[in-house]
Amino acid sequence: MSIENLKAEIARQFGTPAVVIDLDVVERNIARLQALCDAAGVANRPHIKTHKSPVIAAMQRDAGARGITCQKLGEAEVMAEAGLDDILISYNLLGEHKIGRLGALLSKAKVTVAADNPTVVEGLPRAAEIAGRDLDVVVECDTGRKRAGVATVAQAVALAKDIASRPGLSFAGFMLYPPESAMAETQAFLNEATAGVREAGLQPRIVSSGGTPNLNNLGRIDGVTEHRAGTYVFNDRMMLAAGVAGLSDCALTVYATVVSRAEADRGILDSGSKTLTSDTGGLDGHGLIVEHPQAKIARFAEEHGFLDLSACNDRPKVGDIVRVIPNHVCVVVNMVDRLVTVQGGEIVGELPVAARGRLV
Amino acid sequence: MSIENLKAEIARQFGTPAVVIDLDVVERNIARLQALCDAAGVANRPHIKTHKSPVIAAMQRDAGARGITCQKLGEAEVMAEAGLDDILISYNLLGEHKIGRLGALLSKAKVTVAADNPTVVEGLPRAAEIAGRDLDVVVECDTGRKRAGVATVAQAVALAKDIASRPGLSFAGFMLYPPESAMAETQAFLNEATAGVREAGLQPRIVSSGGTPNLNNLGRIDGVTEHRAGTYVFNDRMMLAAGVAGLSDCALTVYATVVSRAEADRGILDSGSKTLTSDTGGLDGHGLIVEHPQAKIARFAEEHGFLDLSACNDRPKVGDIVRVIPNHVCVVVNMVDRLVTVQGGEIVGELPVAARGRLV
Repeated sequence: MSIENLKAEIARQFGTPAVVIDLDVVERNIARLQALCDAAGVANRPHIKTHKSPVIAAMQRDAGARGITCQKLGEAEVMAEAGLDDILISYNLLGEHKIGRLGALLSKAKVTVAADNPTVVEGLPRAAEIAGRDLDVVVECDTGRKRAGVATVAQAVALAKDIASRPGLSFAGFMLYPPESAMAETQAFLNEATAGVREAGLQPRIVSSGGTPNLNNLGRIDGVTEHRAGTYVFNDRMMLAAGVAGLSDCALTVYATVVSRAEADRGILDSGSKTLTSDTGGLDGHGLIVEHPQAKIARFAEEHGFLDLSACNDRPKVGDIVRVIPNHVCVVVNMVDRLVTVQGGEIVGELPVAARGRLV
Repeated sequence: MSIENLKAEIARQFGTPAVVIDLDVVERNIARLQALCDAAGVANRPHIKTHKSPVIAAMQRDAGARGITCQKLGEAEVMAEAGLDDILISYNLLGEHKIGRLGALLSKAKVTVAADNPTVVEGLPRAAEIAGRDLDVVVECDTGRKRAGVATVAQAVALAKDIASRPGLSFAGFMLYPPESAMAETQAFLNEATAGVREAGLQPRIVSSGGTPNLNNLGRIDGVTEHRAGTYVFNDRMMLAAGVAGLSDCALTVYATVVSRAEADRGILDSGSKTLTSDTGGLDGHGLIVEHPQAKIARFAEEHGFLDLSACNDRPKVGDIVRVIPNHVCVVVNMVDRLVTVQGGEIVGELPVAARGRLV
């Protein structure tokens, strides 16, 4: 059906705001990433944090992904329950509660975890003991993002040795998440860390890099064996700004209604921070309105998107339905229990966001 | 139990991050607001957007609230289903989907809706027709916030007449949400609008004002009949900054674990924008760490809170559990399906956030 009819039909069936994905674009994005990884000679381990759906994870696997990446234990549990295997949990896990759940998960699926400090490593053998099976551990290395990750090569090598010395743990390699601007620094860090662990008789089997913006750098770091990209599956305004996606690559849009136009230069959209979230991604304004690219979503209340229409010639009226490409798509998906799915310009149904809200 | 034991026990039972409310503080906050409203001679119509829980809404009602306020139709449906009655939906509702649901809701509960434009008013009679019962409508007036609400007295009066002329609709009065600094402007607007509708033979039965920061202004606007406060039930760092709450009035804290300390001046908390959200509320930093008030949650990734510890003498180590008072509590509640409840220093259980994620 026409886009105007589709908008009216989605509003009629689901009400707005509705978070909608175009499965044709999703399939194209999945195929493109797989082709990029194949061409670069690195394995594809997509990050499910973007879609939080075992159905889409299975599409990624069936297209050639080696495994998946999860940020949280609870996400990994949902994926394993649905039959996904070979799961990297890219996060420091510690404490009795999580170690117990990690042990249970490991008894059902192949799991690798990341660690960046000895306290975390010290707790992991208990998970292997519960599972009765070795646990692969990668050392998370920080090469400029100043997030998690050991800060020095010496710490990376020491932690690798620590892992290898523990019962039930296997040193599996390194995990990187380099800023796009730090390729040379990352290569130097990886070279030295690899030499260091080899000196100790250890071999990095996995060197995992990540990030959708880093798809431009795929294959540029020697020694990387796999790539973790998440956002590429839907894309968003940040990816448009980063130059790794065009408008036709954006699979997810929020269908929203203009509910107020109290003055000529402003209006209110029925999507605020509870829908689009306050994650700016470093951009000015919150989201791109496809029908009114000159309109600015200037700020938010929870249920109000404040429209600045001063730069618009064609201004929306109360009742108009518009599509918004959010600044940061991953966090928008986490706000809803179901995504409305569209294919071939028709409504297909709804897809549960099965791993939504898994904080632990 | 001691706070250290409570922290350990919550982490053991639920893992972190855990969103925890202290029911003793909740009860105290509910009683205090009711007393303030009683003393000011205005009815109490608390906004449920903060807790999204029919259980807490019933506590508010049983303490003396006249009714409740919801921002979304879906929230009102959850509340009505649980037996709450006299519900103000403080939002422009339009479109076939919402009008149909509004009609069904109106047939089960006393409902008032807000409107700020003729397009919205035009759609509302159909809801009354479905319900077979009149629908009360208040005119939303903007007195400085530049959000929704008619911008002028003339528009307010015209819309009141429009409402009164429609079959099935009853003009019920005005809804305000004045900025704390605009009491005089709000009074002037209300006086003129009231005179205007009286001239047309209409009477505002309800004049609803709102906002927890405006509790300082309770009773200061002549003619106001009721107040909508939401955040007061839990409070947050914004309310601390606004001077309407102290630390002991903050009922909700996020129990989080320090998972990384790669360098002396920084660390990572296992709570990022997926837990605490990127809503800053105009404050510097994201949340107050009770145990380390000098620590700054400088920025977020989805699952990472970036700690700047440079101003701390006593710095947390990996594995430490800390309590965070979020900048904006309402949006944090919306991230979880259940709140952990504590009373008398003991874990009581979990409270479902039954109206979480109701976007429509």
